[in-house]
Amino acid sequence: MPEYSNKDVSILKAFGGAVRDKRKALGSISQEELADRAGVHRTYIGGVEQGRRNVSLLTIIKIAEALAVEPEDLFAAMPKPANSAGSTPGRSA
Amino acid sequence: MPEYSNKDVSILKAFGGAVRDKRKALGSISQEELADRAGVHRTYIGGVEQGRRNVSLLTIIKIAEALAVEPEDLFAAMPKPANSAGSTPGRSA
Repeated sequence: MPEYSNKDVSILKAFGGAVRDKRKALGSISQEELADRAGVHRTYIGGVEQGRRNVSLLTIIKIAEALAVEPEDLFAAMPKPANSAGSTPGRSA
Repeated sequence: MPEYSNKDVSILKAFGGAVRDKRKALGSISQEELADRAGVHRTYIGGVEQGRRNVSLLTIIKIAEALAVEPEDLFAAMPKPANSAGSTPGRSA
């Protein structure tokens, strides 16, 4: 696994949290079920949700389709970093 | 370059078109200027805009930041495929 900056890790984790939230919103289907629907490996979704995968555009689209959301909904669901403010980002619950 | 399905090519081109549109909207900065701002190689943005790059999540975020838009704005600007309708998808202009 490549070395990611703290900012990159925050982004990957924020995206993973958004995927998890949308998956739970979809009647709590399992990671394996989502992987099957998206046509990716069964363990891949777990890696995405944990922020360990720098997902590609085409896979983002597949995951969004499998979640029955628009890709922009996934991004809109990412907690925004506290860009210039002094507050700590906080973990997405 | 990997072989992409027609659908994948459509997605990559739609994303590339959205990047181009946002770049033009940003006072028509050059691809090279955008690349510099995003911290990617000077030729990379050209490849993205032509739909030849399956951009990663972290690079999508960098490009959005360099374009001064939210990543969801890039996705929302992608022309939507005619998912279930009988019409042919059509090329994004």
